[in-house]
Parts: sequence; C-alpha cells; structure tokens
Amino acid sequence: MNAVATFTRLREYMVGPSRFMILLSCFELGIVDALRKRPGLTAAQLGEAVSAKPDAVEQLLHLPVKEGFVAFDKASGGYSLDAFAGVSDADLQRVLPVLNMIKVVMLRQLFYLTDSVRTGSIVGLDKLYGFEGNLYEAVAEHKDLRESWATMMDDVTAHMDPWFFRNIHIPPGSRVLDLAGNTGLGAILTHRLKASPGLRVTTFDLPEKEAECLENFRAEGVAEHCSFIGGDVFKSVPKGFDVVLIKHFLDMFDKDDVRTILNGVSEALDVGGKVNILVPVYPEDITEPSSAGVDIFPAYFLACTMGQGGPQKLSTYRKWLEEAGFRVTRTVAQDLTTMPGALIAHGILCATKVA
Amino acid sequence: MNAVATFTRLREYMVGPSRFMILLSCFELGIVDALRKRPGLTAAQLGEAVSAKPDAVEQLLHLPVKEGFVAFDKASGGYSLDAFAGVSDADLQRVLPVLNMIKVVMLRQLFYLTDSVRTGSIVGLDKLYGFEGNLYEAVAEHKDLRESWATMMDDVTAHMDPWFFRNIHIPPGSRVLDLAGNTGLGAILTHRLKASPGLRVTTFDLPEKEAECLENFRAEGVAEHCSFIGGDVFKSVPKGFDVVLIKHFLDMFDKDDVRTILNGVSEALDVGGKVNILVPVYPEDITEPSSAGVDIFPAYFLACTMGQGGPQKLSTYRKWLEEAGFRVTRTVAQDLTTMPGALIAHGILCATKVA
Repeated sequence: MNAVATFTRLREYMVGPSRFMILLSCFELGIVDALRKRPGLTAAQLGEAVSAKPDAVEQLLHLPVKEGFVAFDKASGGYSLDAFAGVSDADLQRVLPVLNMIKVVMLRQLFYLTDSVRTGSIVGLDKLYGFEGNLYEAVAEHKDLRESWATMMDDVTAHMDPWFFRNIHIPPGSRVLDLAGNTGLGAILTHRLKASPGLRVTTFDLPEKEAECLENFRAEGVAEHCSFIGGDVFKSVPKGFDVVLIKHFLDMFDKDDVRTILNGVSEALDVGGKVNILVPVYPEDITEPSSAGVDIFPAYFLACTMGQGGPQKLSTYRKWLEEAGFRVTRTVAQDLTTMPGALIAHGILCATKVA
Repeated sequence: MNAVATFTRLREYMVGPSRFMILLSCFELGIVDALRKRPGLTAAQLGEAVSAKPDAVEQLLHLPVKEGFVAFDKASGGYSLDAFAGVSDADLQRVLPVLNMIKVVMLRQLFYLTDSVRTGSIVGLDKLYGFEGNLYEAVAEHKDLRESWATMMDDVTAHMDPWFFRNIHIPPGSRVLDLAGNTGLGAILTHRLKASPGLRVTTFDLPEKEAECLENFRAEGVAEHCSFIGGDVFKSVPKGFDVVLIKHFLDMFDKDDVRTILNGVSEALDVGGKVNILVPVYPEDITEPSSAGVDIFPAYFLACTMGQGGPQKLSTYRKWLEEAGFRVTRTVAQDLTTMPGALIAHGILCATKVA
C-alpha cells in the first residue's frame, strides 16, 4: 500500500463515526419507513412526514443516495428506496438492534478508549453515567443501556445457543454444570434441548443470582431437574459434574483470567470429564475481510463493557485448553461468508480432561 | 446491489465508530510512535513502553494489522510499521488533528444527531457540556473543544486561504469587505496577498469582535489600511464597497439563510460590484467516491456545530448567486483525487452584480 492508498484508507476511518450516525438517523427519524410506505416523497414532503426541516432531510439523504441504499430522481426531486427496497423490512429490522446497541453502548463511550486502556476500567461509564463498574453491572441500574444491550444480546443468544446445543454431545444422565450461567437460561435450554433420563443441570454463578434463577426454574417447570450453586469462578469451581458448559464468557477476560478459569474447570473435573465452550472468535487469518471481529470487539470490551478482554482465535483457545490439561475433540467455527449482516463469528470447542 | 451486498455494506457502517477509535487510540497511546522508533517490539514490550496491558495492546493492534498499516511477525511476536512506514511522520501528523477534531467535536455529539435534527439545535453540546448554543459559541467557553476545533480549522485555513487568494482578482485600489470576517485574519491576508495602492479592507462581523480585530490589525501593522464595521449580516450589509469576500461561511446555513445573505450582499453592491466566495462543496455527482463530503458534513453541521446548514454543490451556489442578481464569472473546485488524505473539496465562486 503506497502513501496515497494509505491516506485513502485513512479517510474511510475518519468518516466512520459520522457515516454510522447519519445512516442510523435516517432510520430513527422514520425516513426509511416513510419511503417504504410512499416512494417518491420529496425532501419537503419527507420533512413534513418526519417533523424535520427539508434542508436537514436533504443533507442526511445524500449519503444513502451515494451508497445506492436510496435513489434520488433529479427530475421529480423524489426519493425512493434503492438497495434497501431489495431487503425485506424484517431483515432490515434485525440490523437495527445492532445499530442501536453500537449507538447506546459504544458511540460516546469510545471517546474514552485510550483512558480505558490505560486504567483497565470503563472510563466512559463513569464520565457519562457517573457509574463505576463494568457494563454488566451498569445495565442493572441504567435502563437505556439495559434495553439497548439486552435487545441485541437476546437476539445473539436466540441464534447462537440453539446452534451450540446442536453441535455438542451431552451423554444421557449427565450431571451438567453451566459455568457463569447467570439466571438459568442455559440450564433451561440444556434441559429442553438435551433432555435425557437422569439429566441434572446446575447453574453456577454469583450468589446474588440464586433467587431469580430458582424462580426461572420454577416458572419453566424444570425445578426438579435444575439447581443453583453460588460461588466465584475465580476462587473455585464446584466438583461432582460430568460436563461443564462455558457460554458467552471467556471473551470477557484477559489471558491470565481465561487460564485461571480453564484451570479451575480442569481441577473440578475427573479425568474423562467434558467441557463445551461457546465464544466469539477471531478468524485464524486476522486479515480475513468477512470478519469484523477485530474492527469492533477490542473497542467493545476495552472501552464499553469490561476494560479488559476480547475474543481470541479458535486456535488460541485450543492451545489454552490443552495447557489446562484438556484434549480438544471438536471445534466448529461459523462461516461468516454464509451469514449476511452478521458482524462476528462464534466458535465451539469441545474438550475432554486427560490429565 | 443485492441483499447480501447490502448487508456487507451495512457492516462497514456498523464498525465505523469502533474502527475510528481503535486506530486513533493506537496513536494516542503512543503505539505508532514507539514502533516508528523501535520496530519489532512485542505486545509485552509495547505494553511497557506505553503503560498499557499487553493483552489490550494485542487487541488494539489486530485492526491495523488487518489493514496492513502495521505488520506482525508471527515467529518473533514483533510488530513493525507496514503501510505507515511508507508515510512520513510529518504527513501522518497532518492527519492527527483531523482525527482529534472528529473525536472531540463529533464522536459523542453524534449520539444526538436525530434529536439535533428534530430541534434544529446542538443537543450534544447541551447534554455533554450543559451549553446552549452552537459550536462557534461553545469554543469560547470550552478549552477542549476550542483547541481541537481551532487546530484543525487553522490547518484548513492555512491551506485554503492562499489557494483562494491565488484564484481571485481584486482590482487595484479596491474597497474590500470581508463578510463575517471574524477577528480580521481575512483582511490581513487580503492586504498581504493582494496589496495595491489605495487598497482598503474592512472586516464586517458582530460588534463584539471589534476590539480583538483592531488589536490584530495593529499587531500586524496594517491598521492604516484595515478597518472594522460591526453589524449583523442578516440585517444589513454595509454599502460602499467594490468587492465582497465570503469565506468559510455559507456552508453554515440552510438555503433560506444563504439566500438572505446573498441578497443582502447584492443590495449592498453597485452594479459591477464583485463577490468572491470560498466554501466547501459537494461533488456534482454525489456518488463520486473520492469525496467524503456527504459522509461527514451533514453530521458535522447538524449534530456538532450549527444544528442546520451543510455544503451544497458548486452548481447550487451558482444558481443561488444568479437568483440574487449576480453573473458568475469564474468557478474553481478542488480535485480530491490529487489531494491524498483530504476529506472534502473546497470551491471558489467569483461573480459580478448585474441587476
């Protein structure tokens, strides 16, 4: 890449934030909806429809027109959906929760990325919300963060967890531990998707999750098959289980902490015990263009959620598992080239304790 | 563009904010500088050099490696500059003030773009700074905004104004009015670059600029050739001038206001009087990829500076000039394909009052 190409590429970086928000604003203002319902509206008509000044509508629509998302007819001065017309409203609506999460959970907080890296804390939550702690704690107190983040995460979980359970084997009658299982959703899914005679699933998480978790088990009618153990994964992992599940968790931590967790699981299992991991992964070739993992996750974890962490390559998790005394028996990585609109790939690692 | 291509393109939008800030953070932390001085540093060594955890350095560097800005040597675990090595430090340092302006003046404020469009005010300044007003007022009170914005603007002015004066003709002995001339820089430049016997230049701006403007004239030794008139361009433009200059101003306003300004100038001039305009312009073909104007300016003006405004095409300004009673005698637009690293093109319009 010569100097001119480098500057051209840097320009793409410079316009990243404004481009993101101009497009999202076209959705938020209702411009895209209005054009879906009534193609051909002029800036003046759109301004009236969405309660904005026509001058502002015209300014905002230049970019979607440049992209070919929206078409502009010079003769009539009317706008209509172009590429956006070829995408169903339902598909487009699936993208909006991600855009909203990036806006609410990331956009302002990113300003403090450098400070967050220096301090290992989420400076943005402190500056913007007066909140000291990580995002997972902040969502309990701040409705805007919770709604935006949870809507996106629920969607991720709804897609990822069934795929995870299809890809793992849980021997009949196993005693399963769902590590960092929060308020029991993973245990409930395990019971629902991997039912077998004698199967027992235990959610392991911080003691304060117990009441809500047990209430969820009762509400779902699985209370006799599911239980809760309170504790701290960094202190010790409960013994007496055949299978441990670790979903949506390892990517939150730096290397030393991930190894502490894997060593704890290894110590808690007998030889032959299994661990099954679901985690976002970076592509083995970091320059792979279909993955946007390294474009978003470092900032998401360092500046917006944990002040540390970030995904690794599948091969890195494999190595760390092996160093913790496991033999990896199966790995699966999603192929993003088959998943339009998806930003990042998840991976599954299945391993057996060998020593 | 089919649905898959549309989603792939939308992904570029989603990663815009995080990508911007990850790269800027590599500069802010000093990682790029450290690698320029000592190629081959590992994440551990870089972490020590810039006071950050090696895990975080590794996460942040994935993206510049993906881009080819930075190279990673798997065998040694060392990083070195790749494409960034082919760009002089001086050239790279010219980009940093723009990145910094986008961070300080835009990144957080963009969150409020939709609200700003709905209200026609800069909601972000109110929410983030408790400031009611536009950016040009806010920079007087807020040092962080002032330093970031002025550093970038000074750089723009230093490049644009000499180009403007090279491209316009000011007849010897003219009486020149620098409209919205702020604290006199344009008048000083006119005197310096367009000197002729009897040339008189008057800065026209709000009365509160007078003292600083006159002080600048004295300091630059041009007090006997330059003067100041206080007033409001939307109320009336002073008469008795041969040439009016309008630099860095028209893009701040919506269509009605731009026309009010041009009509005011037209009324103030005698037939044969000249106006010379310097303004950022959108390309005539809005889909022209070399221009990032529509990718950044709508958000810059609507959410971050004025709550209104934004550039137009050169042909639009030409039309508005003609409607205000001018004949356009010369237009010049910058060619961005010859300006690596530049985000936006400026244009010059020279016109003569005909009716």
